[in-house]
Amino acid sequence: MDAEILAVGTELLMGQITNTNAQYISSRLPSVGVNVYYHSVVGDNPERLRKCLNIALERSDVVIMTGGLGPTKDDLTKETVADVLGLKLVLHEDILDTMKAYFKKMNRKMTDNNIKQAYLPENCIVVKNSNGTAPGCIIEKDEKVVIMLPGPPSEMKPMFEETVIPYFASKSQYKLTSKFLRIFGIGESAMEDLIMDLVEKQSNPTIAPYAKEGEVTLRLTARYKNENNTCDGEEIIKPVEDEIKRRLGDYIYSTENKNLEEVAAELLLQNNVTIATAESCTGGLISSRLTDIPGISKVFNRGIVSYSNEAKIENLGVKRQTLEKYGAVSRETAREMAEGIRNVSGTDLGLAVTGIAGPGGGTAEKPVGLVYIALADKYDISVKELRLTGDRGKIRRITCLHAFDMIRRKILEWKENDNHS
Amino acid sequence: MDAEILAVGTELLMGQITNTNAQYISSRLPSVGVNVYYHSVVGDNPERLRKCLNIALERSDVVIMTGGLGPTKDDLTKETVADVLGLKLVLHEDILDTMKAYFKKMNRKMTDNNIKQAYLPENCIVVKNSNGTAPGCIIEKDEKVVIMLPGPPSEMKPMFEETVIPYFASKSQYKLTSKFLRIFGIGESAMEDLIMDLVEKQSNPTIAPYAKEGEVTLRLTARYKNENNTCDGEEIIKPVEDEIKRRLGDYIYSTENKNLEEVAAELLLQNNVTIATAESCTGGLISSRLTDIPGISKVFNRGIVSYSNEAKIENLGVKRQTLEKYGAVSRETAREMAEGIRNVSGTDLGLAVTGIAGPGGGTAEKPVGLVYIALADKYDISVKELRLTGDRGKIRRITCLHAFDMIRRKILEWKENDNHS
Repeated sequence: MDAEILAVGTELLMGQITNTNAQYISSRLPSVGVNVYYHSVVGDNPERLRKCLNIALERSDVVIMTGGLGPTKDDLTKETVADVLGLKLVLHEDILDTMKAYFKKMNRKMTDNNIKQAYLPENCIVVKNSNGTAPGCIIEKDEKVVIMLPGPPSEMKPMFEETVIPYFASKSQYKLTSKFLRIFGIGESAMEDLIMDLVEKQSNPTIAPYAKEGEVTLRLTARYKNENNTCDGEEIIKPVEDEIKRRLGDYIYSTENKNLEEVAAELLLQNNVTIATAESCTGGLISSRLTDIPGISKVFNRGIVSYSNEAKIENLGVKRQTLEKYGAVSRETAREMAEGIRNVSGTDLGLAVTGIAGPGGGTAEKPVGLVYIALADKYDISVKELRLTGDRGKIRRITCLHAFDMIRRKILEWKENDNHS
Repeated sequence: MDAEILAVGTELLMGQITNTNAQYISSRLPSVGVNVYYHSVVGDNPERLRKCLNIALERSDVVIMTGGLGPTKDDLTKETVADVLGLKLVLHEDILDTMKAYFKKMNRKMTDNNIKQAYLPENCIVVKNSNGTAPGCIIEKDEKVVIMLPGPPSEMKPMFEETVIPYFASKSQYKLTSKFLRIFGIGESAMEDLIMDLVEKQSNPTIAPYAKEGEVTLRLTARYKNENNTCDGEEIIKPVEDEIKRRLGDYIYSTENKNLEEVAAELLLQNNVTIATAESCTGGLISSRLTDIPGISKVFNRGIVSYSNEAKIENLGVKRQTLEKYGAVSRETAREMAEGIRNVSGTDLGLAVTGIAGPGGGTAEKPVGLVYIALADKYDISVKELRLTGDRGKIRRITCLHAFDMIRRKILEWKENDNHS
């Protein structure tokens, strides 16, 4: 089946937000046998929306619409779709009850214009919304499928995963399975050099590299028949994956499309390794990403964002002389921060970061982008010096990646040694 | 003039990347009198591209295309556009020379397929590319304007700013100016109730609400004649803006399209108010957002991510009895955390957060989403109880918004009192 994603919202046309929904939906549909051939965006204007919908219905089997399901007068998606498809909007009492309960729980008053959200086209499949008030729906009409989902990604994504993906999975003849190898520590072109011959000769699975800030992802995609339960795509991917692993080794940090922080956190949890962090230039970004992982409290003891020298001295026991002699951004200060946070928290690992994220604060000797990461365990403190480029945000984000990679490599090294002893 | 942005690239339809170019271009065009009514995305397929281009030419005066100008066989934008418009592609010797110089500078070998990039449609205005090899162009034909730009944002953006913006500025009869009022603490429908009559009766400026996670933005857009230098759009917006401000009061936290953390950080910096943070469930997210702001080290002293009870006791001086009697997630613990972080760091403000972000850890009495935020100053400690819904990430993000809003309101309150005393 061929699909088009049609987003509705003047805020997209004004450039207030990016259409991340189209990206998300597009990345998920191939796995259930749906190919995305077009994205469109139109404003909150019923006449133009009507025309876009007609174009989409003519060229695509499936039209997935996002946005325009809110309670305000601007929100006209449902009314326009119902009109184009010749369907009536009917009140769903159960949706109204759910909405009332939602407002009660949120301790907010439900206003009259919210009631409009409980109306959906007749005979549709309701797509429940657990994170907001606007339900979505799936409409089957004249061999076309039209799906409406709300615009906010935090509402759209769970609805898409819980209802839309299973809906297509049950209908699909061919399936695509993708596996993502996540790679850190080697540049895109250096990596491509190592696997170029594989990329060129492969057709099933296909191999597509994609570089993003500081890391590279390889997507391996296998295509196979849905009904054939003896083959599940994994078998098609495995020999190629094994060869890539042989060549790229531990540059590959995940074969399950996990983030570096998830991989680091899982290694900490699985091996019951406790950790505490001391951050200067990253300002809590490392601890905030680690604590994004549910259950991390079992191993994450505390974090100190030691932005001032006083905090480094008082909370971490960094020596004043060290700060005076080498400066706050130095290998020596990083070492003492890592040792200090490990001592005060009594954890297995102490991770510390100090650096110059910019835009100000750089000197010829210590330029913006100079960062030290130190990792202390009971034997040793290892320090990594980075010289990063880019703006403040990028320097902070790439520093985090290196920090998580150091945690990952440290635990893998321990496991390796355990196996040999 | 009405415009459409047509992006070409299968990587967009596969969800490998987000169409940030459309967002960028859209945000810039209104200032030079061009309204964006549609975005489209199509893959590297000449037949489908041809159809999309024909649709775009029918409904829009201006079509701005991004992507598909590279050297590979996949890149077919120029050939397809030339064909649809009935134009020949001609070799530009000067572009070829520039390309050769570029490859020399980058120390890379120029391959034969790069030569294809020096061909552009006859009679076009060349858009030079200082950051890559693919030039762009502006074509005027039959009262339509078609513009082709390369896909990589680092190439597209400077080309757009240096050539495309001046091109439209010189042609435009009307200009649009938008002002964004950012609102926190009131739901979208409750807000609309307060300003419904204004939204309905306004045509210049238009008023458009947009809700995103936890907050609402109102966009006021004025349209005015380019040649009339006595009017700059601001004047058209002002009376309506003033009326909205009168009705929504301090729910409006920015009239300059700033984030809540930027507003809070600016108030801290402008008024030289020092702060330290103690975070439990947000795990450093508040400090990491504050420290996203350059220069914040002047007022941000430190942050403690007190994930364990030990950290709360040792780093913040929370009483063990308080934790035992009321629990780590309680109004009492939040108060002691805020007071504690303020004391240890000697700052004007101490901000503390404790809560249950989930998915585990909730009970009937203390469900997932229960969060306490405390803000201590030298007189007082105020505590806010939140009962949030959504996943772990959303609960953490909305908690941050409330925390930044408490900082904002506290400083505004001080300023108000100063003015009255």
